[in-house]
Amino acid sequence: MKILVLNSGSSSIKYRLFRMESMAVLRVGVVDRIGEPGASPVRDHREGFLRVMSVLSESGAIRGAADLYGIGHRVVHGGDRFREPARVDAGVLEAIRETIPFAPLHNPGNLQGIEVALAMCPGVPQVAVFDTAFHQTMPPHAFHYALPYDLCAAHRVRRYGFHGTSHAHVARRAAGLLGKPPGMLNLITLHLGNGASAAAIRGGESVDTSMGMTPLEGLIMGTRCGDLDPAVPFFLAGATGKPPGELLALLNEESGLKGICGANDMREVHRKAAGGDPSASLAIDMYGYRVKKYIGAYTAVLGRVDALVFTGGIGENDAEVRRRACEGLSPLGIALDDARNGSPSKDPREIQREGTPVKILVIPTDEELEIALQTLACLGNHPGEEGQR
Amino acid sequence: MKILVLNSGSSSIKYRLFRMESMAVLRVGVVDRIGEPGASPVRDHREGFLRVMSVLSESGAIRGAADLYGIGHRVVHGGDRFREPARVDAGVLEAIRETIPFAPLHNPGNLQGIEVALAMCPGVPQVAVFDTAFHQTMPPHAFHYALPYDLCAAHRVRRYGFHGTSHAHVARRAAGLLGKPPGMLNLITLHLGNGASAAAIRGGESVDTSMGMTPLEGLIMGTRCGDLDPAVPFFLAGATGKPPGELLALLNEESGLKGICGANDMREVHRKAAGGDPSASLAIDMYGYRVKKYIGAYTAVLGRVDALVFTGGIGENDAEVRRRACEGLSPLGIALDDARNGSPSKDPREIQREGTPVKILVIPTDEELEIALQTLACLGNHPGEEGQR
Repeated sequence: MKILVLNSGSSSIKYRLFRMESMAVLRVGVVDRIGEPGASPVRDHREGFLRVMSVLSESGAIRGAADLYGIGHRVVHGGDRFREPARVDAGVLEAIRETIPFAPLHNPGNLQGIEVALAMCPGVPQVAVFDTAFHQTMPPHAFHYALPYDLCAAHRVRRYGFHGTSHAHVARRAAGLLGKPPGMLNLITLHLGNGASAAAIRGGESVDTSMGMTPLEGLIMGTRCGDLDPAVPFFLAGATGKPPGELLALLNEESGLKGICGANDMREVHRKAAGGDPSASLAIDMYGYRVKKYIGAYTAVLGRVDALVFTGGIGENDAEVRRRACEGLSPLGIALDDARNGSPSKDPREIQREGTPVKILVIPTDEELEIALQTLACLGNHPGEEGQR
Repeated sequence: MKILVLNSGSSSIKYRLFRMESMAVLRVGVVDRIGEPGASPVRDHREGFLRVMSVLSESGAIRGAADLYGIGHRVVHGGDRFREPARVDAGVLEAIRETIPFAPLHNPGNLQGIEVALAMCPGVPQVAVFDTAFHQTMPPHAFHYALPYDLCAAHRVRRYGFHGTSHAHVARRAAGLLGKPPGMLNLITLHLGNGASAAAIRGGESVDTSMGMTPLEGLIMGTRCGDLDPAVPFFLAGATGKPPGELLALLNEESGLKGICGANDMREVHRKAAGGDPSASLAIDMYGYRVKKYIGAYTAVLGRVDALVFTGGIGENDAEVRRRACEGLSPLGIALDDARNGSPSKDPREIQREGTPVKILVIPTDEELEIALQTLACLGNHPGEEGQR
């Protein structure tokens, strides 16, 4: 039973083919520079998808489209309609289209990928898996902004949250690692990658998360500012004369780690800091401090915390960021074991100090596998515990 | 020894005269509708100040300007220059003028009040006391935003924080109440009034606060939105076509409690909620929840917390908001005693449950007295502990 997972961007299609019985990755790759000016060999998403299918066939990974049990598509924004993955039909396509204003950089590419795959493999069931869906369990006091109520209702302005596939995946794996049912656990999951978000998860359900209506809010990211006085962009508009589009691009693409110290990759930030660059040291200080504040806020939200879970490229690999995020939190029952934290292991593992009440876990995320599992579950198959939420 | 405290707005002058030996209020009042169109009897700040002085003289509170030991002026924004109150001179006036872009609604009125008082009472020493000064001890990782570094430096964009006079006042009174030196205490102070802010205070120094470059960031307020995805105003600009000035006014004047449920006064919000208005119940839920998240965040920042301090009109009088803010925090050592919390007492008091490690205090704030004390201290007098920071 094979499932193809597609993550279609505006100019790329990332793909991964799974054999679900073993959860093995049969093939992984990317078609990029789609439709780019110049000598791009791939003119559009249709050609891109054809290329994916021909790579899979020529390598012998599949015999043809009929060999696919389903295709799972990553969709960034599902608005407030999708609490679960959805089997794609005309209504689902229309709902994704309506959500484009919330994710103008992502949803159009996601949608093109689905439309092309649907047109070219009409016999293969297709499922849309939304980054926002996992957070649709947030209660109203967590998802509403303190803005005029009717205005928000009219324009669907609220906290949606993102990285839901990743938060859901590591939350379930954490339960497995701790040997408890997800419904019994309170978790704070920290997805720290190029984008970054925190989530408070009570009994398997997201009750708050740091990203908001868009992925701009919350933690400091590679190039996004995260939390900011909402008056600052207005002030900068006046001070610099930049038009709104340019300012929003500045907050999304020129801020975060890159804005503070010029490097958006945390590994490079560490190298600069080690070389004596004070702005890189500041960037690391700020990054860890902001994570720490969210750990505290979500500890207050959850009351009892069973475990912190670090994931994402930084969360999984950066012992120094984990150290700063947890530093001084022993009054909250949170303390790292230095040796365990410093281990370069790539396995899911516990890194808390012996005897402290809150477990601290490092769990590699696997959003593609999670999409494959959710696709399978959506199509009516539940391969054991792993396929369920 | 008498000190006059002035809080000059764009169209009002609030005044309070203190006898410093006893810290007694000799006279309190307001001259308002200054320069308003129609039949305003007070054409400008000069006439307003003359009226204050004649009320004080005619009531016998002072014999004349020479009877004043000093005048203390409230100034909302001191930028990054003022870490302490400042004796007013030409340089100080210029620095306040330069800070007008950061507080365009407040600093011009504050400045006019100082200029008029200085011109009319040249022999009386005058002191500017800044709402931002107390927070100038924040470390860089707390006050920087994750925006392009040079842009922030060029335009002095950073977290400044406000309500510093109130946070400083209740922090010192908390130390008195707890019988410990301020330098030994870690406090979370919650100023919940029409404006609202939280501060993390370590050993008497502010190390973080919820308001930012402007008073818009942080907690939910009467009419201000507080924390918000910084992309939302851009989205609303596109969705509604409103120009930036109108949007900023919407965030400052039409949001917060008023935006959620139509009432900006928490007492009215409670009445509406009791009458079955679900939007008012939502407003109370959101308000308490946001306070709770800051308590958690600052607990993580401080590590050990000796006391929470509630102050401001809501913080001092609203047992229900205090209850919601502290609900479920017993794992953090924070729990209210229901009877103590429900007491309508106006005295400074402890309201935590017997035996819990974190004290919870209710302390009435007195920003005018604090300004008078800081004015006295700035002029070289220290009437015992109370005059010191």
